[in-house]
Order: sequence, then C-alpha cells, then structure tokens
Amino acid sequence: MKLSIAKNELNDAIQQVAKAASTRPAIPILGGIKFDVTHQGITLTASDTDISIQSFIPVESGDSIVAKVDKPGSVVLPSKFIVEIVKKLPSDEVEIEVGEQFITMIRSGSTDIQMVGLDPEEFPVLPSIEQSDVLQIPGDLLKSLIRQTVFAASTSEQTPILTGALVNLFEGELRFVATDRHRLANRSAHVDTLPSLRFSNVVISAKTLNELSRLIPDASALVEMVVADNQALFKIGSVLFYSRLLDGTYPDTSKIIPQSYKTELVVDTKKLTDAIDRAYLMSREEKTNIVRLITLEHGGIEISSSSSELGRVTEQLEAFKMEGEALRIAFNSKYMLDVLKVIDSEQLNIQFTGAMSPIIIRPADHPHSTYIILPYRTTG
Amino acid sequence: MKLSIAKNELNDAIQQVAKAASTRPAIPILGGIKFDVTHQGITLTASDTDISIQSFIPVESGDSIVAKVDKPGSVVLPSKFIVEIVKKLPSDEVEIEVGEQFITMIRSGSTDIQMVGLDPEEFPVLPSIEQSDVLQIPGDLLKSLIRQTVFAASTSEQTPILTGALVNLFEGELRFVATDRHRLANRSAHVDTLPSLRFSNVVISAKTLNELSRLIPDASALVEMVVADNQALFKIGSVLFYSRLLDGTYPDTSKIIPQSYKTELVVDTKKLTDAIDRAYLMSREEKTNIVRLITLEHGGIEISSSSSELGRVTEQLEAFKMEGEALRIAFNSKYMLDVLKVIDSEQLNIQFTGAMSPIIIRPADHPHSTYIILPYRTTG
Repeated sequence: MKLSIAKNELNDAIQQVAKAASTRPAIPILGGIKFDVTHQGITLTASDTDISIQSFIPVESGDSIVAKVDKPGSVVLPSKFIVEIVKKLPSDEVEIEVGEQFITMIRSGSTDIQMVGLDPEEFPVLPSIEQSDVLQIPGDLLKSLIRQTVFAASTSEQTPILTGALVNLFEGELRFVATDRHRLANRSAHVDTLPSLRFSNVVISAKTLNELSRLIPDASALVEMVVADNQALFKIGSVLFYSRLLDGTYPDTSKIIPQSYKTELVVDTKKLTDAIDRAYLMSREEKTNIVRLITLEHGGIEISSSSSELGRVTEQLEAFKMEGEALRIAFNSKYMLDVLKVIDSEQLNIQFTGAMSPIIIRPADHPHSTYIILPYRTTG
Repeated sequence: MKLSIAKNELNDAIQQVAKAASTRPAIPILGGIKFDVTHQGITLTASDTDISIQSFIPVESGDSIVAKVDKPGSVVLPSKFIVEIVKKLPSDEVEIEVGEQFITMIRSGSTDIQMVGLDPEEFPVLPSIEQSDVLQIPGDLLKSLIRQTVFAASTSEQTPILTGALVNLFEGELRFVATDRHRLANRSAHVDTLPSLRFSNVVISAKTLNELSRLIPDASALVEMVVADNQALFKIGSVLFYSRLLDGTYPDTSKIIPQSYKTELVVDTKKLTDAIDRAYLMSREEKTNIVRLITLEHGGIEISSSSSELGRVTEQLEAFKMEGEALRIAFNSKYMLDVLKVIDSEQLNIQFTGAMSPIIIRPADHPHSTYIILPYRTTG
C-alpha cells in the first residue's frame, strides 16, 4: 500500500471514524483505524464491535485531486496516535507507505514517522446489511428526534434495555421513546416513505445516538437508515454508521401516558425554565432537587424550593391559561429542566392528574412531543 | 442593612471576590461573602485565610446610580449559592434586606429569596497593611511575569516553598523565579520605582498568582503591590487581593544558571514547538516523555522520539545559527513544550554545556528571560 493524500481530507475522515475506536481496547486491533486503499479511494473504518464507523475518501473530489494511489492495500494503525498526529503534520500533503510486517512510513514535510501497523485481516468484519428497505430522514429532523428524547434514557446498567431509545416506524410515523421509569420522552414525526416499510422494537443505545447526532451536519442533508437483524445502519453522505441493537424487549410505554387530566396550564417556556432553574439551585443543596408547584387563587402559579441550611426561593409566574382544579405538587427540578431545555416552542402546556399522578408536558405548538415526569411523594 | 443595587454591578463584584471563598470550608463562615454596606457603597469580601479578595461598589459610578442604600449594615451570605443565583435573577435590580438573626431577603422581579445569613463579626479580619511602600506595575507586565514563570513551580506538597514563585525587587528590577528542581523559569523586568524600594524572599503560591492574573484586566492599568510582614497586597482598580506569603527560605537559584556553554543554536520558535509537539505525542506513550535532539553534520538539528509499541517520530529542523560542539542530548518534551509555549519571540536561543548539563533557553530578542531544563540521563 502506497499513496499520497491531502492532509485536511484525511484528517476529517479520521476524526469521523475515530469515535468508534475503543479507547481501552481489549485487544490492540480494536483501538485501531483500518485503511483500505484502492484506485478509487481510501476507506477508513473503526469499530469497537458495538458501533462501527466507516468513511470513504474518493481520489478525486469535484475538480481537485485528493489522493494519488501508487499501490492499493490495507493496514490498521493505532487510532489514538493517528487522530492527534495527522492534524499536526507540517505539510498539506501526507505520504503513507506500508512495508514488511505492516511497518508503515508516514511522511509530511520534514516529519518522518515509522509506525507499527497491524494486520487488517484481524480487524472485525462489518455486518452485511441488505440495502433494500431504506428509510430516508432529513438530517435536522433526526438530530431533533435524538436530542428531544435520549436525555430521558436510563444511565443505570441494571436495566440495560432502558439505556437505549426505542425507535419505531409504523405507517409513515417515526417515533423515538426513552424512559428511565421516573420520566419519559416521546417524540414522533411523519416521514416520507412507503407505508409497507415498518419496524418495531428497534432499541439503540442513547450514547450511540448522541455519537450519531454529532456526525450529522447541520445542513438538512438526508440520512438513510436501514434496520436488519440486530443492527441499524445510518448513511450520512460518505460516512456509514453501524450500531448494534440492544437485546431485549422494550417495555410498553403507551399506557403510562394519561388520557385525561384535572388541571391544565399554558405558560411561557423561557420564564418557567428560568424560575425552575433558580429554585433548582436551592433544591440542589438538599440533594433531592425537590421543587414545589402550587396554583394561586388569583391565577398564575408559585414555584418554590427550600434548604434547611440555606433558606428558600419563591417564584411567581403568570399562566396564559389555567383550567381545572387547584393543585399542589412536588417534582424533581432537574428532570423538569431536562425537558424544558429541549422544548423549542415559546409556550408549553402542562397537564396534571393529581399530586401523585404523572405530569404531562407538551410544546404548545407541537402535539407530536409528549414528556412525562412522575411527581415526588412529599408531605405538606 | 437594606439596599437596592444594579444586578450587573453586584454580579461582577461577586464573581471577582468569590474565588477567595473556600469551596469546602472548615467552618461555614469561610464559605461566605461578607457584605459591608455604607452610604458610600458596598464592600464585598471573601477569604479562605490564605487569600482574601475585596471589591468595592460605589453607590454612584460616573453619572449613573448603581445602588441606593436605605440602611447601612453587614451580613455574610453563602458564596456558592450567591455566585450562581445573582446572575440568574429576573430583574436588572436587586433588593437586599437583612432582618432578625441575619435572615436576609433578596428580591428581584417576581423572585423572592429568603436566606440564612451569618454573623459578620465571625468573619476573618483582613491583614492591615501600611500603604507606604507601594510598587506600581503595569497590569500586562505583571500578567506576563506570572504566565512566563509559574508553570515551572512544583506541584508537590513535599517541598511547599517550591510550589510558589520567588518575587524579588532590587534596584528597580522586579524578578520572578520558579523551579521544581527539574526546570527553572526566571524573568525580570525594569519597573519605575524609588531605588530605595526593595524586597526579597517574597514567595507567593503559583495557584494564587494564577488567580491574581485572572483578576487583572487586559488593558494596561497599573497594579499596586505592597509587601508587609507575611502578606502581599495587590490593588487592581477597586479590587484588593491579599495573599499570605509562603513560609521558608527560597533556595538560591543564581548558581544553577550556567555562565558558559559548548553549543549554541538559534531556531524558529514555532517550528521547534511544532516538531517537539509531534515527538511528544510518541514519547507520551512510554510515559517518560523522552525526546532526543542531535546536531546534524550539514547544520540543522534532528529531533526524535520512539515507543516500542507504536514506532518512531523523526523531525528535521534548520537552525539560523549553530556554533560549537556536536551534540546529542535527551530531555523531557513536556517540560520543553511548557517553556516554548510562553516564549513570545519568533526566534529563540538554546545553549548546551553537555549531555548531562542544564539546557538554557532564551527568547532571542528578550535577554531578561532565562529558562533551564535538566536533561535526562539516557544511554545511547
């Protein structure tokens, strides 16, 4: 294998795939990036077996020559070092040549690097996925679906299935659900697809979805998604992102969402966020994050928290709309802030069924998102 | 005590002093900020007894009214909460009122906070320093003196005196020295002052000097410095910064700096930095950070490092000037990078006395800075 390649293009592709390389690999090869060089271009692959990322650099891009391949071939180079050194090389061009026993020479300007390369035959083989049933999702929509749900996933390894988000597709409606049993985030969106394309119980690790989100450019390019066996494949431009699905059956969350309520509020999202944020600062001192919300007789609500050592914060807030019974409820302010931060609407709607029943939060102008927080059982 | 005050001015002063409040106070009062309110203005003080910071907010600034004092008085409020809540208050104005038993009401817009205040009589008394012998230092010069020396101070509590920087003033020359026995940084500057003003063996904690540096605005305002007994006082605009001096006698470092050399190089600072940075990435894998430098026969130098698992980096670099004996030396690349990062000159001068003798580095256009690194004793 021998080629010369533009430093910036090589660096971009390395940064994209490196996220999938193991930082503490069980065997050295899992901490590597595989280079596959043909006369068409360079394919970089990293894989920790849970996720795999592949990026392709074509030898020509538009009118410019990106790489010149003298001899095709493959090698695996250690990710941690490659990720840092390539961007620091002195010249805009990098020469890579693999010799005997995968010893690899990297040359750029006055820099000469001799690396211990590894045998590409030992590198994990990527899952083969039939690309027949492809779902196309606008990139910005996929980013929103991820951002607005995965925060509610569990971080406890005691319930592995809940560390992921459930992704379902049914009759053109794509739905993301995440819950840690104390709160739930549910967001759906219509996607243009054949009605016959559907999948259910696809559960992808929240951490993996966040990595995926970072690879999606902000421009609204289409992302292609394929589900097969125990894998999901996302294609973002020239990058392929493979994720293993989590094992197990995701719990049925449809019955958790209450269908009726006793009290309903419509409030300003930013004002509620700021008020709860201040109450949170005090509630944090008691480690419980308990904040209380009560409806006021003249309309509006009062939000408060207290700490025996520090004191008490009391906030008054107007409501655009308040209907139903008077209410007194306590909840985890951190959970509420997590929800409020991902709501992009200026106003939001909160429904209460009672002091011990789930609190339902929805953006006022977006009925396809539903957030649920279980209240705290407190006295007084 | 009762006043109303502009939120931004109050917040700025709180952020300035809060650095001195203990994050894990032995007694609660050391984790507090003291408010002293008179008809002239508000003085905020925080102190962990090693350092103390005081900031004064006058009731009027230029043409604008900053605060309106209804009733003078004092109280101590917990720093951690105050630092975060004040900037998040909803209105531009904040009302503070202290009631019975130092219970303090803070009101802003629709926010009502009741805080458990502490008795200001229990707050540490700041050292009294006679302001007769005042040294005036341009703020940007003081920032440079700190940045270009304190990185070489020891972080080991086994040699407490070396965790500080030595600050001497003699015949109008202000000198900062720091060393951890493996390297040394020495920077002096001429300051306009009476020749009679002098001090020696003033040793201030490197951590404290970094805090001080952050309080100095980038504009070249004058900083006033006073040394008395076991304290140094710095006055930066309306902020007073007190630091306890470290106990003990700083070692005599004047004899460490070699007066002669066998080999001298002049090289480009950025090119040397980049080359050593690349070699560092490889040397880091072996935990030793060892990088080798050899002079080449045709002129110029070669920098290299190697790791048994990863491979080898070799860098070639031209020298503007090379005089004296051929050389082969090894050193800690991290220590060298620390020096190179604070050298602002485009070129630098390196002198070697031998493979086992100190390496001397000086900015080419600034003879008042001297950096020393002890080489590694390696074989081969």
